[in-house]
Amino acid sequence: MAQQERAIRTRRIILEAAAAIFDEQGYEATTIAEILARADVTKGALYFHFPSKGDLARGVLDGAVTTDGVRPQALKLQELIDVFLLIAYRLPREPMLSAALRMAIDLQSRRRFGTAWPDWIELLTGILREAKSRGEVLPHVDEPAVARTLVSTWTGVRVVTEGLPGEHDLPAEIALLLQLLLPAIAAPTVLTRLEVSASRAAFLYEDMPAWRAETAEAEATV
Amino acid sequence: MAQQERAIRTRRIILEAAAAIFDEQGYEATTIAEILARADVTKGALYFHFPSKGDLARGVLDGAVTTDGVRPQALKLQELIDVFLLIAYRLPREPMLSAALRMAIDLQSRRRFGTAWPDWIELLTGILREAKSRGEVLPHVDEPAVARTLVSTWTGVRVVTEGLPGEHDLPAEIALLLQLLLPAIAAPTVLTRLEVSASRAAFLYEDMPAWRAETAEAEATV
Repeated sequence: MAQQERAIRTRRIILEAAAAIFDEQGYEATTIAEILARADVTKGALYFHFPSKGDLARGVLDGAVTTDGVRPQALKLQELIDVFLLIAYRLPREPMLSAALRMAIDLQSRRRFGTAWPDWIELLTGILREAKSRGEVLPHVDEPAVARTLVSTWTGVRVVTEGLPGEHDLPAEIALLLQLLLPAIAAPTVLTRLEVSASRAAFLYEDMPAWRAETAEAEATV
Repeated sequence: MAQQERAIRTRRIILEAAAAIFDEQGYEATTIAEILARADVTKGALYFHFPSKGDLARGVLDGAVTTDGVRPQALKLQELIDVFLLIAYRLPREPMLSAALRMAIDLQSRRRFGTAWPDWIELLTGILREAKSRGEVLPHVDEPAVARTLVSTWTGVRVVTEGLPGEHDLPAEIALLLQLLLPAIAAPTVLTRLEVSASRAAFLYEDMPAWRAETAEAEATV
């Protein structure tokens, strides 16, 4: 393994260990010693990549907005749905995503590091605008307001689902949320063509390795 | 003032002081000394009503589920809307309500004290069932699932709205949320008769003193 590649890998291991502990007990309660033990790296390696605990928090938040794994679709609204379904599937499995949300809802962490919500809203507003220009979205829809509501409601479903007794499958809950919201967003002829289900979330997740390989190949040939 | 009345008043002052500080900095970071200073009561009075900090948290959570101020309406769905609009108006103004939500989304507090979410879901499921029996709700609607989504999305709008830069009026954001969700819940003929606006939230709030006086009078004559 080349030296640079090894450094990238170590950085990733540290960040994932930090994210896992932030997610379990919150940013404030986490110590560097716990992160060192979990990542199984030296203090020197950790401080080389992340001079402070705050840099670890910022590193986690940097990866919070992602459309990785979402392929172009005939309907732009399907892409929007796929973004939400895929994150719903990944979040309970990936501490980096889960910790970013945990830090956003924590008052102390949020005051210190801000949140990824404005970036999410901007991303979704863009998708909604393109969908509207194609006639997929109802004419009276206010794109930034709907994007804001989508981010809020997605967040709420995650937070409350996690806090309720019993088992609630996040992709199924997010599919239900989208099914309830879409009649007020999508044009009727488009609505019936959209696929919104927990099984689509699983399908998108299983497709990610292929998506990654194709993306890497496309980048290599540029 | 009768002695019992004074005790009730003191209890309320302590609880509101505790709620205000829980809301500002979280349950964990709050000290009894801070609550004493804010409430301006003696240590003896505080410990008489609340033997521990945990009792204060439970006292705050006990008042989190409320339909106070909601009058019976011709449409049961309007009552459901009124519950949400009124809480949206009250929450930023009443630390007791705001602190209960803050403790519910905090991992540590939630593990210790639970949340009011199951009680909210039960309450809303009941209203939805009655609305459905009157033909106000679309036949395929799953009442507990929709009640769960209503609680989740309401919570998410509060949490994200508070964390976004700029000013966002909670009643207006909740009105938008309900406008987006209701087409998938209400029967079409009912939908057009529902009043969902930030101004209705303000109207309901201004009606509360009258509602309280009438409720107290009705109770006195029982």
